[in-house]
Amino acid sequence: MKIARVFVKDQIRWAKVEGDTVILLKKAPFNKIELSSQKISRDKVLFLAPAAPSKVILVGLNYTDHARELGMKVPSEPLIFLKPNTAAIGPGDNIIYPKGVKRLDYEAELAIVIGRKTKDVSKGKAAGHIFGYTCLNDVTARDLQKKDVQWTRAKSFDSFAPLGPWIETHFDPTDKQVRLYLNGRLKQDSSTKNFIFSPGYLVSFISRIMTLFPGDIISTGTPPGVGSMKKGDKVEVEIEDIGRLLNRVA
Amino acid sequence: MKIARVFVKDQIRWAKVEGDTVILLKKAPFNKIELSSQKISRDKVLFLAPAAPSKVILVGLNYTDHARELGMKVPSEPLIFLKPNTAAIGPGDNIIYPKGVKRLDYEAELAIVIGRKTKDVSKGKAAGHIFGYTCLNDVTARDLQKKDVQWTRAKSFDSFAPLGPWIETHFDPTDKQVRLYLNGRLKQDSSTKNFIFSPGYLVSFISRIMTLFPGDIISTGTPPGVGSMKKGDKVEVEIEDIGRLLNRVA
Repeated sequence: MKIARVFVKDQIRWAKVEGDTVILLKKAPFNKIELSSQKISRDKVLFLAPAAPSKVILVGLNYTDHARELGMKVPSEPLIFLKPNTAAIGPGDNIIYPKGVKRLDYEAELAIVIGRKTKDVSKGKAAGHIFGYTCLNDVTARDLQKKDVQWTRAKSFDSFAPLGPWIETHFDPTDKQVRLYLNGRLKQDSSTKNFIFSPGYLVSFISRIMTLFPGDIISTGTPPGVGSMKKGDKVEVEIEDIGRLLNRVA
Repeated sequence: MKIARVFVKDQIRWAKVEGDTVILLKKAPFNKIELSSQKISRDKVLFLAPAAPSKVILVGLNYTDHARELGMKVPSEPLIFLKPNTAAIGPGDNIIYPKGVKRLDYEAELAIVIGRKTKDVSKGKAAGHIFGYTCLNDVTARDLQKKDVQWTRAKSFDSFAPLGPWIETHFDPTDKQVRLYLNGRLKQDSSTKNFIFSPGYLVSFISRIMTLFPGDIISTGTPPGVGSMKKGDKVEVEIEDIGRLLNRVA
């Protein structure tokens, strides 16, 4: 099932996406998905980031093929970092190229959306804490990342976490293609079968550090092929069985 | 004026602290401080973290005397990192020693509390965006910080951002003593006159990266003398003209 957050009639509402229409939900979908009787044409609503996360946690190197590309050893445990929730934007929103940044990169990623308050969950029980999956672009000011060593500034500018277009709730993350298109040309193309750490492992690992809440995002790392963007570029993250997240650089 | 967040009669309320009493506020204090007629004895309320931040931003090396202690050059711009807001705890709450961590350190810091939505503010205008100041303990799993290189995991465990005991709204940060006591013994003792980057500079710098909201926290780095804690320890951050933030390690 595809669940979106939409702006319609001056309100932010959750909705189920069905073909060319959306059916508004009565309330947030995390406990139970309750449909209202309001069915609206898809082109009459604005799709927002499909979650309003209290936090956005990301994982470094998590694809075996990306590790090979970089000539790096496969890590023994996940390397985590944070983006502020002010970095989140929705499908169609512009990625803002910050003044002074010299190199701005895309990174296509599969993002986990948490469904329940989660602390110290085992890997085996983690699946029950995942509401669904969406696409994320881990936009990175590569020059600042190198300069600072700490990644925070390079990853934290407003608009540096495009999310969407919706959450797929029935999704098996064991072998799905993750692709990035820059101005229509394929730049990244790998499968989640190359994951070093599975989504369940990541949720468990992170839940032993910090309490997670419904709508929180855990992004699962990027495959090989990262590269730079310039103003005016169109960038799309496409994940098999989810959809395509489109943003432009402004 | 000292502004606290307190738990009283099953509610979270803002309050003005006056000697042995607190006067409850009608609403959040950021736009305007409006007192109610409810005056309560201080020992009848539980003091909470004096803000519920949407984000907690911290700054690396920011004291000239700490740079000297570490034999490091004074940085040319601030190095920022984030803690999740789930790390925030209040005065009297326990710092939880995580399983598997080998060295847990205290870091006494002066924290800025943001008062208004803030984006791209100049250094000169930043003071108008600061609501006040409080004490923060930047609790750090030093072994994980060294292992990961990225600081996020080491700084992000639940309970790793003790805050409080309240916000001082009339506070000149140009020369105030910042001290840390471990089990009553003085361990850190410096003045904000040794800041490399002033609070106004930090707010301006960070606001060019991310939008800040009322209640957001910017912590200003720690002076020399950081060291480790063990279970059962009592740790206190004391800042001149604010007060003393006391927590125990459990």
